[in-house]
Amino acid sequence: MTGTPTPFTAGDYEARMRRAAEAATEAGLDGLLVAPGPDLVWLTGYRPGETERLTLLVLRAGQDPVLVVPTLEAPDAAAAAPTLTLRDWTDGKDPYEATASLVDADGRFGVSDNGWALHLLALQRRLPDSRYVALTESLPMLRAVKDAAELERLAAAGAAADATYEEIRKVPFGGRRETDVAADLADLLRQFGHSQVDFTIVASGPNGANPHHDAGDRVIERGDMVVLDFGGLKHGYGSDTSRTVHVGEPDAEEREVHDVVRAAQEAGVAAVRPGAACQDVDRAARAVVAGAGYADRFIHRTGHGIGVTTHEPPYMIEGEEQPLVPGMCFSVEPGIYLPGRFGVRIEDIVTVTEEGGWRLNTTSREMAIVD
Amino acid sequence: MTGTPTPFTAGDYEARMRRAAEAATEAGLDGLLVAPGPDLVWLTGYRPGETERLTLLVLRAGQDPVLVVPTLEAPDAAAAAPTLTLRDWTDGKDPYEATASLVDADGRFGVSDNGWALHLLALQRRLPDSRYVALTESLPMLRAVKDAAELERLAAAGAAADATYEEIRKVPFGGRRETDVAADLADLLRQFGHSQVDFTIVASGPNGANPHHDAGDRVIERGDMVVLDFGGLKHGYGSDTSRTVHVGEPDAEEREVHDVVRAAQEAGVAAVRPGAACQDVDRAARAVVAGAGYADRFIHRTGHGIGVTTHEPPYMIEGEEQPLVPGMCFSVEPGIYLPGRFGVRIEDIVTVTEEGGWRLNTTSREMAIVD
Repeated sequence: MTGTPTPFTAGDYEARMRRAAEAATEAGLDGLLVAPGPDLVWLTGYRPGETERLTLLVLRAGQDPVLVVPTLEAPDAAAAAPTLTLRDWTDGKDPYEATASLVDADGRFGVSDNGWALHLLALQRRLPDSRYVALTESLPMLRAVKDAAELERLAAAGAAADATYEEIRKVPFGGRRETDVAADLADLLRQFGHSQVDFTIVASGPNGANPHHDAGDRVIERGDMVVLDFGGLKHGYGSDTSRTVHVGEPDAEEREVHDVVRAAQEAGVAAVRPGAACQDVDRAARAVVAGAGYADRFIHRTGHGIGVTTHEPPYMIEGEEQPLVPGMCFSVEPGIYLPGRFGVRIEDIVTVTEEGGWRLNTTSREMAIVD
Repeated sequence: MTGTPTPFTAGDYEARMRRAAEAATEAGLDGLLVAPGPDLVWLTGYRPGETERLTLLVLRAGQDPVLVVPTLEAPDAAAAAPTLTLRDWTDGKDPYEATASLVDADGRFGVSDNGWALHLLALQRRLPDSRYVALTESLPMLRAVKDAAELERLAAAGAAADATYEEIRKVPFGGRRETDVAADLADLLRQFGHSQVDFTIVASGPNGANPHHDAGDRVIERGDMVVLDFGGLKHGYGSDTSRTVHVGEPDAEEREVHDVVRAAQEAGVAAVRPGAACQDVDRAARAVVAGAGYADRFIHRTGHGIGVTTHEPPYMIEGEEQPLVPGMCFSVEPGIYLPGRFGVRIEDIVTVTEEGGWRLNTTSREMAIVD
């Protein structure tokens, strides 16, 4: 769809680390302890395999970032983040000693949500006066506002997901297993440039009433509604889109439910503007579903952020008062789920602009008829 | 290679949960809090996708296990673990309330190593008098001793990895990128029944001196040593084997280093017997490497356990005094790494029997010459 984007530079990562350390100070923290995963890849470009061996980036305002890393992994870390100071530790040595020497013994630190309990407990034991708070609680918007280079990647991932949807509409559904269509989705996402496929939900007939049904052995039948929800990473940034298709002609109720979800999704996207609260997006979509009498059949939040991972803050959910800021990217994905019968979900990734919500998924939201 | 093994039954999982709860009591714990990942899949058969939404199995001796689970995921959890009591929570509600109501406010709990810091911190805040210890510290051997049904799976995964090695020896190496050979390895592992490929290390020439080099753009040349280290999951259990091959005829030094590693690996396996300590295996292998003058070129532990994950306790490392018990399975994988030049590693999975170590990988450990 598009060419390879210009890689992020060491300067880009240094700017992110500096901003993160400053934000930590503003939030009353003495530093950030960043675990392998989305926080680390966003801050440094380094994406180690997750293992039981401690890898931890220590960020403190006004000081050079330091990556505590197993000696084994040090060459890869140095290659991925050449300007980063490494403090390596060898099998059999105590990895927490190096970490403890870098931080205040009675400091308060933000830690990556997905940091391992094993490591957090060891730090708490070694530094009994230290305190910790999860990053999504202390700095929930750290990665939420995307810059132009990130938006370019998210748009490219969205375009690849859209191309996947256009192609999947052409494959046969009736008589094939959900897993067969899911395999087609994965192949298409890769064909359109995804390096990683995170989910390929194909939820046919009654399986559609389970929002997180993956794809199973059920043979799709003529007359089925089928929820498709798929995404992954392209050039390191996420895609996530849902459409609900029908095998053959739908009946009146199926059309009605699909129309309600489509209107709810439209309302959710229309509520996106700078300064609106995250919960306003949820409320706008939910009001349409409730108005049609399906309030208790919309059993999940309306959306989640997306970036270097396919699920992250901000969350479009009742109670989330975080104001929307231009550059935020998130899903708007209302659904209606009728147990034992069928479900409908429609989802686009939307970015906040000065003018309102701008969709990164632009395929038709009318119910497609498939074979 | 082999047929599909008989699935584990609800009774198998109940027995594991009961044993785990009893072991927790013996270790002075009031219960176990089990996060999605290897602990949960081993105890229940349930393998949810990892998300920010809390899923947690609460085990207490003499009480029924309870799985705290997002409402969204409850149908999948019920399908995977039909006899388990579920306590579901809905988006927007506090997931820690359900958890807190199940445990003693001042209890001491074992938590999965890979449980998220986000959740641990929330529980610590809600129950300030509760205390936590990581599972590998409190019950390191919980999953370490495999029963016959598990050994059958590990043997099948090992046989599939061996078949992969036999085939990869036939592909061209010289003139192709490391990533090309890595892709062949992944295809072969899948062809021989792996559902998941965890790593396909192809470390040629100087890249071999980095034990955790993955596979890169380097074009393999005639005269290169190439470390191959690959594995993943088949029927839910792990494989992990390494062989070092040579493109064309090796020189005398390459032969010598390979001979030393091979002898070290032999010595490590020979040290495996019930009652020996984990560190004895490390010492036996390391003594051979040190005796040949390469002590400071063997820069990692000798091995790690394997089961429903490819890295887990027990660790074959200096300081680990845990006695070996029949049914334990782990890697024996010494290596020598010469920076800027080449590396050699040889690895088999070994299980402890009454008679000593029994290899689950049985391909030739002589240096293979490839094209």
